[in-house]
Amino acid sequence: MGSGPSNPEPRVLQAMAAAPIAPDDPAYAALLDDVSSLARAVFQTANMCTLAVPGASRAGIEAVLASLVEPGERVVVGVYGHFGELLCTLAERHGATVERVEAAEWGRPVRPEDLVTSVRRNPPKLVAIVHADTSTGILQPLEAVGEACRQTGTLFVVDAVLSLGGCELDVDGWSVDAAIGGMQKCLGGPPGLAPVTCSKVAVDARARRSTLPHSAYLDLACLQALWIGRQGLERAAMSTSMLLAAREALRIVTDEGLDARWERHRQMSRALRVGLEAMGLELFGDSAHKVPMITLVHVPDGVDEAGVREQLLVQHGVEIMAAFGPLRGRVWRIGTMGTNARLPTVLNVLAALEAVLAARGLRLPRGAAVDAALAAHSS
Amino acid sequence: MGSGPSNPEPRVLQAMAAAPIAPDDPAYAALLDDVSSLARAVFQTANMCTLAVPGASRAGIEAVLASLVEPGERVVVGVYGHFGELLCTLAERHGATVERVEAAEWGRPVRPEDLVTSVRRNPPKLVAIVHADTSTGILQPLEAVGEACRQTGTLFVVDAVLSLGGCELDVDGWSVDAAIGGMQKCLGGPPGLAPVTCSKVAVDARARRSTLPHSAYLDLACLQALWIGRQGLERAAMSTSMLLAAREALRIVTDEGLDARWERHRQMSRALRVGLEAMGLELFGDSAHKVPMITLVHVPDGVDEAGVREQLLVQHGVEIMAAFGPLRGRVWRIGTMGTNARLPTVLNVLAALEAVLAARGLRLPRGAAVDAALAAHSS
Repeated sequence: MGSGPSNPEPRVLQAMAAAPIAPDDPAYAALLDDVSSLARAVFQTANMCTLAVPGASRAGIEAVLASLVEPGERVVVGVYGHFGELLCTLAERHGATVERVEAAEWGRPVRPEDLVTSVRRNPPKLVAIVHADTSTGILQPLEAVGEACRQTGTLFVVDAVLSLGGCELDVDGWSVDAAIGGMQKCLGGPPGLAPVTCSKVAVDARARRSTLPHSAYLDLACLQALWIGRQGLERAAMSTSMLLAAREALRIVTDEGLDARWERHRQMSRALRVGLEAMGLELFGDSAHKVPMITLVHVPDGVDEAGVREQLLVQHGVEIMAAFGPLRGRVWRIGTMGTNARLPTVLNVLAALEAVLAARGLRLPRGAAVDAALAAHSS
Repeated sequence: MGSGPSNPEPRVLQAMAAAPIAPDDPAYAALLDDVSSLARAVFQTANMCTLAVPGASRAGIEAVLASLVEPGERVVVGVYGHFGELLCTLAERHGATVERVEAAEWGRPVRPEDLVTSVRRNPPKLVAIVHADTSTGILQPLEAVGEACRQTGTLFVVDAVLSLGGCELDVDGWSVDAAIGGMQKCLGGPPGLAPVTCSKVAVDARARRSTLPHSAYLDLACLQALWIGRQGLERAAMSTSMLLAAREALRIVTDEGLDARWERHRQMSRALRVGLEAMGLELFGDSAHKVPMITLVHVPDGVDEAGVREQLLVQHGVEIMAAFGPLRGRVWRIGTMGTNARLPTVLNVLAALEAVLAARGLRLPRGAAVDAALAAHSS
């Protein structure tokens, strides 16, 4: 119940335990095709260049930035939490000149009009922003930014690692040129592969570069040649274990249906929040812009933040997460992602947290959290 | 029975099917520790900086080159097959000026004295070479090169993706500053993680850079901070699925013992080769420098190279590999790696190949291959 990895379905884990497939095997190409087309459905895109970067989510993010930005080019980054800072760091590593557009504080999104103004005044090569940030639990509105980017010929890059599969992301409808998802959050897979989609405009931008990206491993043109063009297939051992797990996880997502999955995440985060408030705890962050897959809640005064987490883990087998940056020690982060966005897990974390806090002497209305969550769920 | 991935032991695949571990979990740090110390044993090194790069083997190779070479620095690459070419490509991507020292032809190693002369005449920043190349099946002698590098203050980088766990590699004894292994070859794991070890000299060289490596994901200093320094642990979701599989595979290797494992690979490749020759087939490559984990054999005149491989796969469930580069269509590549370096698998591939070739009208001494392999094995 942390900020990811979430618990994959057993059939996803079993899919991974099949023997690896060699690149020469006909089943290898079919596996790449399946993952591409399932990822297209989940990203809501017709983009031909839809694939998975072989590595952690940040490998996917870095692949997009390394491939689309040439040294010295201007990049505007929206920053409202830790993962916006990461976008700045990565863009700078690859030689970009970064201009930050910041939220007023952690717990609020960047004002879309600030980004739009910045883009219109002096269009950069690329705008990059996080869609949903686990460090703050905030959801960033994207549509107006995408529209401004489209009108000014600016590439629009969205880190959707947390959001993909858990709330709406309309890559084609919102004019997103490149988006990166995370298998290990709301898609219910293990960490180790990063789904990425790139528009024709982004693919062309990579093709028109005057210099090669420094990394070959993270060069989307190389990955595209492999996945879509089927070039060099026999020489590149992707982790078919991870691809098998990704295919199974993505199938579960498309079988459930995107709308139903988003609604489930909304309902379960609502039940959790109602329960936490009934326990007398205070939620963190701008209530109009909360993500439906992670909930940040203030640690009550005088309570040992780390001690509660440890007790939850050891006594209840429930893992919740610390916060970082300015929120470290002040806030817990409780995920409701993928398989964990279900009523039994929500009620269990509420009951366990209540028991742990009560045992530490906090005066709580016993049972109120579960009752409130149940009432919210059935209403 | 191809050039990798090989078939992992069932218990390695089952290890991967356990639930992912979150970075906050105490078990996460213990898992990193276990993989590091097991990898040290397998690399035969005391290097503190021994870890696994989260990605394919080539992510490990690129991480080493990206971290140790600054733009404009001279790198000498020994080239005797496809993966030497890859070292040149990757070093150039990261800004190195590459000088090639080449073998006389595919099927021979680089003459160590050529490399030694090149290093002594004008010591480069770094020498990179493949230890065992799947494209040619050739083993490269390393000790004299390591000695020359040590004496001239040159970093010595070895791509041991194919060799690690299948034949001797003495990182400390041979003065290797950085080596990259492959889980999916002789170590018997799935693809998706690259074990890497770096000497103190290499770690210092990274620390002394005047510029940051372009990639953060592939920056060994970042990975070292995470694995060894335990910094930023909570923010970096390594694929614990892959780490669990790697730990199990490495444990199997150390339980068997390195000497016993190398001897098994030697014996099984010998049995395979004796069998292929008894069938009347001709082996490819310099017989004094053959690797013990893959065997290249000429396709007999008039035989459909791809057709035989397809028939082996469909009728016998045996996968062998095509060759590439100048050997494409002329040579098959048959692996004896990890769990596949066992008598039943060797006899099966010989019997199946004989049956397929006989069915295609080749006049073969029926049964001779298996008899010869058995005799070689028991002698």
